[in-house]
Amino acid sequence: MPAPIDFYFDFSSPYAYLGSELIERVARKHGREIKWHSFMLGTAFRGENTGPLTSYPRKGEYSRLDFDRTARKNAIPFNMPPKFPKTTLAASRGFFWLSKRDEGLAKRFARAVFAAYFVDNQDISDLNVILEIVRKLDIDDQAFVEAVQHDTIKEAYKASVEEIVNAKSIFGAPYFIVDGEPFWGADRVVQIDEWLTTGGW
Amino acid sequence: MPAPIDFYFDFSSPYAYLGSELIERVARKHGREIKWHSFMLGTAFRGENTGPLTSYPRKGEYSRLDFDRTARKNAIPFNMPPKFPKTTLAASRGFFWLSKRDEGLAKRFARAVFAAYFVDNQDISDLNVILEIVRKLDIDDQAFVEAVQHDTIKEAYKASVEEIVNAKSIFGAPYFIVDGEPFWGADRVVQIDEWLTTGGW
Repeated sequence: MPAPIDFYFDFSSPYAYLGSELIERVARKHGREIKWHSFMLGTAFRGENTGPLTSYPRKGEYSRLDFDRTARKNAIPFNMPPKFPKTTLAASRGFFWLSKRDEGLAKRFARAVFAAYFVDNQDISDLNVILEIVRKLDIDDQAFVEAVQHDTIKEAYKASVEEIVNAKSIFGAPYFIVDGEPFWGADRVVQIDEWLTTGGW
Repeated sequence: MPAPIDFYFDFSSPYAYLGSELIERVARKHGREIKWHSFMLGTAFRGENTGPLTSYPRKGEYSRLDFDRTARKNAIPFNMPPKFPKTTLAASRGFFWLSKRDEGLAKRFARAVFAAYFVDNQDISDLNVILEIVRKLDIDDQAFVEAVQHDTIKEAYKASVEEIVNAKSIFGAPYFIVDGEPFWGADRVVQIDEWLTTGGW
């Protein structure tokens, strides 16, 4: 069985949300697993001296047009949050903790967080919003809160983010690694589909 | 007859070179004309506080891999110039001047400059290299030199670049406008193809 496709995301990235939907469709088509990895774009941006797309006046304006266009093209529900970007550390640490215990459950949690932000425009920087998702998925909310506030998880997640940014050189999201080949951007999922079909070029 | 597709490029952009080849193929397929517009990425970068892709350590490394991969996928000759980026003001002004007189000739000149840089790795910041191309295309080299050094052309080109960056909000290259719809990036030519086929989404 082939190795899973690695998918790197930040909960506050619209393209990561759109990419998460697109890569899951492509993975199903090719019978491949996706391993989701949460990281912090802020750490990546600091290393590159870059910033969120919407912090650039002209590129930001184009991106907003393109978020909607990408969603429309692929029939993905999408409403650009009026408050953007958001700090998503609790959700990200929670995902990290969950993914060590139950990857399938962690992925359902991640998709629910993305939908809360990019479809329902809920405030995912609010721990109560995250805990509502947690309870809906029958995850122990007490254990979740303890985990995201525990130094061991904090340190381990920080180390994981640094490994992703510094050792794997991942500078943006979504970022995919397919059998060793890196692809950056939601728009590259079309190429990943071709790559899996043809074996690459 | 539909309006031409507008294509914005800078001679020192690898993706603009790759995009120029890709968009001409798509235009031929759909019977559309391409109107080429040269501008200066430096001006765009200053307005956005960004820089050339290769100036970012991790994004730069990925981009180099992707330039080659994009060329390979589409069977476009490509050799990354060892000296990158280059100042291309003479070539750009020359293109601007030529395009006012003979668009077809200007386009042949632009393709030859791109090939000189991205296939043969010639130094396109050297006016003599540009003049060699000029002579091969039977353009009057004396008139070319006078034009690119003339204040009227300098001012008009500068105004054109500022209009592209400030009024049209173009922040990167290649950039395409298809019947009013903007697309940024060589990888978006696939979408332009679909857009022309379906009429958009």
